[in-house]
Amino acid sequence: MAHIGILTSGGDCPGLNAVIRACVLCGIRRSDDTFIGFVDGWRGVLDRNTIDLDWMSVRGISKLGGTILGTSRTNPLGEGGGIEHVRTNLKALGVDVLIAIGGEGTLAAAKILSDAGIPIIGVPKTVDNDLSATDYTFGFDTAVEIATEAIDRLKTTGESHHRCMIAEVMGRNAGWIALHAGMATSAHAILIPEQRSNLAEICEWVQKPFRRGRAPLIVVAEGFISEEMAQPHYARGLDAFNRPRFGGIGERLAPIIEERTGIETRATTLGHIQRGGVPSASDRVLATRLGIAAVGAVHDRDWGSMVAVRATDIVRVNLAEALDSLKTVPQQRYDEAAILFG
Amino acid sequence: MAHIGILTSGGDCPGLNAVIRACVLCGIRRSDDTFIGFVDGWRGVLDRNTIDLDWMSVRGISKLGGTILGTSRTNPLGEGGGIEHVRTNLKALGVDVLIAIGGEGTLAAAKILSDAGIPIIGVPKTVDNDLSATDYTFGFDTAVEIATEAIDRLKTTGESHHRCMIAEVMGRNAGWIALHAGMATSAHAILIPEQRSNLAEICEWVQKPFRRGRAPLIVVAEGFISEEMAQPHYARGLDAFNRPRFGGIGERLAPIIEERTGIETRATTLGHIQRGGVPSASDRVLATRLGIAAVGAVHDRDWGSMVAVRATDIVRVNLAEALDSLKTVPQQRYDEAAILFG
Amino acid sequence: MAHIGILTSGGDCPGLNAVIRACVLCGIRRSDDTFIGFVDGWRGVLDRNTIDLDWMSVRGISKLGGTILGTSRTNPLGEGGGIEHVRTNLKALGVDVLIAIGGEGTLAAAKILSDAGIPIIGVPKTVDNDLSATDYTFGFDTAVEIATEAIDRLKTTGESHHRCMIAEVMGRNAGWIALHAGMATSAHAILIPEQRSNLAEICEWVQKPFRRGRAPLIVVAEGFISEEMAQPHYARGLDAFNRPRFGGIGERLAPIIEERTGIETRATTLGHIQRGGVPSASDRVLATRLGIAAVGAVHDRDWGSMVAVRATDIVRVNLAEALDSLKTVPQQRYDEAAILFG
Amino acid sequence: MAHIGILTSGGDCPGLNAVIRACVLCGIRRSDDTFIGFVDGWRGVLDRNTIDLDWMSVRGISKLGGTILGTSRTNPLGEGGGIEHVRTNLKALGVDVLIAIGGEGTLAAAKILSDAGIPIIGVPKTVDNDLSATDYTFGFDTAVEIATEAIDRLKTTGESHHRCMIAEVMGRNAGWIALHAGMATSAHAILIPEQRSNLAEICEWVQKPFRRGRAPLIVVAEGFISEEMAQPHYARGLDAFNRPRFGGIGERLAPIIEERTGIETRATTLGHIQRGGVPSASDRVLATRLGIAAVGAVHDRDWGSMVAVRATDIVRVNLAEALDSLKTVPQQRYDEAAILFG
Repeated sequence: MAHIGILTSGGDCPGLNAVIRACVLCGIRRSDDTFIGFVDGWRGVLDRNTIDLDWMSVRGISKLGGTILGTSRTNPLGEGGGIEHVRTNLKALGVDVLIAIGGEGTLAAAKILSDAGIPIIGVPKTVDNDLSATDYTFGFDTAVEIATEAIDRLKTTGESHHRCMIAEVMGRNAGWIALHAGMATSAHAILIPEQRSNLAEICEWVQKPFRRGRAPLIVVAEGFISEEMAQPHYARGLDAFNRPRFGGIGERLAPIIEERTGIETRATTLGHIQRGGVPSASDRVLATRLGIAAVGAVHDRDWGSMVAVRATDIVRVNLAEALDSLKTVPQQRYDEAAILFG
Repeated sequence: MAHIGILTSGGDCPGLNAVIRACVLCGIRRSDDTFIGFVDGWRGVLDRNTIDLDWMSVRGISKLGGTILGTSRTNPLGEGGGIEHVRTNLKALGVDVLIAIGGEGTLAAAKILSDAGIPIIGVPKTVDNDLSATDYTFGFDTAVEIATEAIDRLKTTGESHHRCMIAEVMGRNAGWIALHAGMATSAHAILIPEQRSNLAEICEWVQKPFRRGRAPLIVVAEGFISEEMAQPHYARGLDAFNRPRFGGIGERLAPIIEERTGIETRATTLGHIQRGGVPSASDRVLATRLGIAAVGAVHDRDWGSMVAVRATDIVRVNLAEALDSLKTVPQQRYDEAAILFG
Repeated sequence: MAHIGILTSGGDCPGLNAVIRACVLCGIRRSDDTFIGFVDGWRGVLDRNTIDLDWMSVRGISKLGGTILGTSRTNPLGEGGGIEHVRTNLKALGVDVLIAIGGEGTLAAAKILSDAGIPIIGVPKTVDNDLSATDYTFGFDTAVEIATEAIDRLKTTGESHHRCMIAEVMGRNAGWIALHAGMATSAHAILIPEQRSNLAEICEWVQKPFRRGRAPLIVVAEGFISEEMAQPHYARGLDAFNRPRFGGIGERLAPIIEERTGIETRATTLGHIQRGGVPSASDRVLATRLGIAAVGAVHDRDWGSMVAVRATDIVRVNLAEALDSLKTVPQQRYDEAAILFG
Repeated sequence: MAHIGILTSGGDCPGLNAVIRACVLCGIRRSDDTFIGFVDGWRGVLDRNTIDLDWMSVRGISKLGGTILGTSRTNPLGEGGGIEHVRTNLKALGVDVLIAIGGEGTLAAAKILSDAGIPIIGVPKTVDNDLSATDYTFGFDTAVEIATEAIDRLKTTGESHHRCMIAEVMGRNAGWIALHAGMATSAHAILIPEQRSNLAEICEWVQKPFRRGRAPLIVVAEGFISEEMAQPHYARGLDAFNRPRFGGIGERLAPIIEERTGIETRATTLGHIQRGGVPSASDRVLATRLGIAAVGAVHDRDWGSMVAVRATDIVRVNLAEALDSLKTVPQQRYDEAAILFG
């Protein structure tokens, strides 16, 4: 029987509530644990702002998007925080262990706090699927599903108007969403941060299907830049197209492709719709299993560990391992997809 | 038994293929009509570019978005066209009557051609629902449904991050999509071209729910401008925010609201996803009924008429009537929705 | 400023919560009305079992299926009830007026109570769309949408296996869901209670598309019976097929069609999934508008009226009118759909 | 450059077309392979009934449910078939290698043909996810997603009417769909063929949430039988409830639970909708990767192998291994889910 604190931190992500619910129900049933939730991530820890989490408060939440606890990007070790501040507050609240659900930043802070002797269990969360210690993260499947549905829709407009359609999806540092959504929608090119394609080959991927009578489809991750865009002089050149620097990569590519290929081109930025709303069944299952496993780690007093999925199993890894490196799209996965480009 | 030409013109719209299928099957079964489709709208008429439309070619298409005929914004009366050109081409192809599926521009051209003695039946098409001669147009329900699903998703992100979310939907001249999608998603403000709200009241609508602990949600039609934005000096002022003039209204409003209210604000432009993909069941039914009715009008030789829906009935109206005036959101409908603002 | 009671009665229906929310928010904002909800329909009235309905209690509910008030099929005028019992309880609770959201049974009871001087406003509710005083009822669009999505799925299995697929949808006395879902999915036959088709023509509708290489699709309303099934001796004959009498019409038709046509045939009963879950955008809009209008009727003291939709307008009709006759599928609507059979 | 035959066999499954498309495009691009498809699985091999598969014939099919090749349950080694018959026909058609996409039966036949020297590559296909040589099979994710959406809908009806809802999903020998869909929908009990629960504990799982004011939800796999139902005398006893033997397990359990607990109980059998229609993004990606890998195995002349997914990798296994044992739900996975029962 433990008094367990839970927090969700960083960008919201479909499945967070399913983790929270699984933790709470599993803890109550297994060993009469009690739970409090910290409001708005680490902010709630620093401010001792909590809500009680009992059976009723997690009722029916596993299919709700977002997080009932709220979230923020507060760094617990930044200004107004610090290891001792966190330790003091957790102690004052009688919290035996903290389950921290978050991305790279959260897990890095969790690692430091854990190393300082504060009992913490991590649950990985990133819509972008870029954490190396786990095969998949919840939220990713939902994001790919939403993007795929939206791109399916864009395709019919492209075909009817003989346009090139560009869909910009999430992925600042890793192109997983673009890779999967692009493969699922039979995109003629998938542009990801890991692969600095040049404009000539992009235009070739556009022209080839157009010559076959198809409407070209490009799926581009927000973090992609072309070989040319990496050149300082070209970056200035972009302004010559009179396109603002805040416009996303899709918006920037559209006029360039249109000018170079003569094919009418339209960009759509899917944006926030990819990370909200009802989680896919697959993400609910993964999130629920991680929540149950996190409570298991609590009872094994496996402080400093993070739960993760490997193949079909839920395993525990050390928080250190979890932060090892960003999981980007490997060359082999890109090459596999690229067979179908153009 | 007639030889009937069909064309789809203007922006694509979910339901076009269901109209085409219904025309073809109904004509074949009822009176052994034969059909050709003009490729890319009026362009196909001017170029005599056609495809045969038989039983097989419309198989399974009623749930496909877009149009199997392709579309364009070509004006048949513009350069390279003209009444006699159209008459000659239709005659050369043996076309007895033309079923023109399109929006205001297409129907206006159809009216002129019809007045010149060319047998034409119109089928109204606009995602924006802004044609006055019909209660609803197909494509509108699908657009509202897609927008609603997307906005439902945005809301969970707003709530988790305590942000104001702005969703920009289609509607250059009429705010129907914003009105319906906003009502369906319990928006705290609906901004439409018909109502020039000012920034002060918009910010009030944002602050009221925020004070109750809600994440404010604004649904704005692309054609909205605020009272202030209608002032020339303010339009220049916008540049002072360093926001580009091509950015949509959602993108423009976000920094203003954030600055004035202090509430973090994010805009999402739904864009082309609203007009593509699988039509809703309701739109498929409406489109199918209109297609059947168009063939009925052909057999009644009711040239110059347009089919339309009134309450639960499919009726015929004169093309002239169809062009009478843009159907905008009436004050009473806006007031009804505005009860729930803030 | 009134004290208003709300109840939902009969089968659940997507949109009920949107009506409740619209009533409560509109009443609070317009005239500081206060609201209580009766638990489980008329049962709550008879038992004085209520919950307070304030701003918070209707937060976010308009997109939830079902009803937060619960529902039952209790008849307020049946055993344990009666006009005076209702009057006494409403008085005791200080209820000035009752908004009764329900189908034919509820509205009939409301009419009797209203005639006895109890202030009541009716809101029509039926997934089946069979109330004559209103063009459409909320819940119907959602049901058709769900059925259409499910039948779209069945079709791919039918095509892959060269089977005849039968989809049984709701509709005991009126075939509206079958008519719309069947039209939306390009069914080869639509069987509804209003039209007693015979097995010979049904088999013909199955064989014709099969000969063209298509997988036949039948959409049948649960209340359909064939001409033969209306004969007493045939009804006994059905048992000879060793099919149980509780099996739905789809299950009964499948072996008959398979035997007569030699085409492998499978039936699927969509059942309860048609009436649950997230309401369509269109139903949320309709339900919200009806809720607002109901509160308008309260303030106009228009007792004994029911709100309804006619074309694009929300109107009021007398409860008597609402009960006039079941709205079944008219011959003309069936004939329109039947053009595309076979 | 090879001449490759493809067949799809057994029950249809979302993702089949994505495999076909990936094979054809990948083969054409990589090494100018040519492709024919066998119509209706092994039947097409026995009858030399084929269609050419070129670039155009696989255009846009990856998101279509079912299989463009048709399918059947024909056993190539059964009556009218045999190893030499298959060998002769493939030779006559100039087929260098056969890609066989199918479940256990198909892969077993493929193994025998491969052992006899016929070049075959297997692609695993089962909606039920019960093949041991692969972590997941395409179609499974879609089935779980569809079941989850449907069950989400059933829950609102259950809650509004205070009923116990039973959802029967696919799974004759393995409970994977029930396990995942049940976990995703927070079911109060998940009944699978691997676990012979008894009626007393099932009723306990129903009563516990009911006492907390919840509507109990049971997700049951079609192949489940309770401890009691495994007893011969009880099986006869069922008839005493006057329930037909062809009724599914959901239909059988409902009256028993209702009688024992006094809680109104309704069963819904999801049936064929689980295996049709648009594949999920995740299944499209998996199917596409398997198709690409199958062509890779062809070029490596890795006859007798099957492609499979292990964690995030596509690997090859021997067909023998693929047939080793049915992959059922392990005790540990059931126990994990069971923590949340009741």
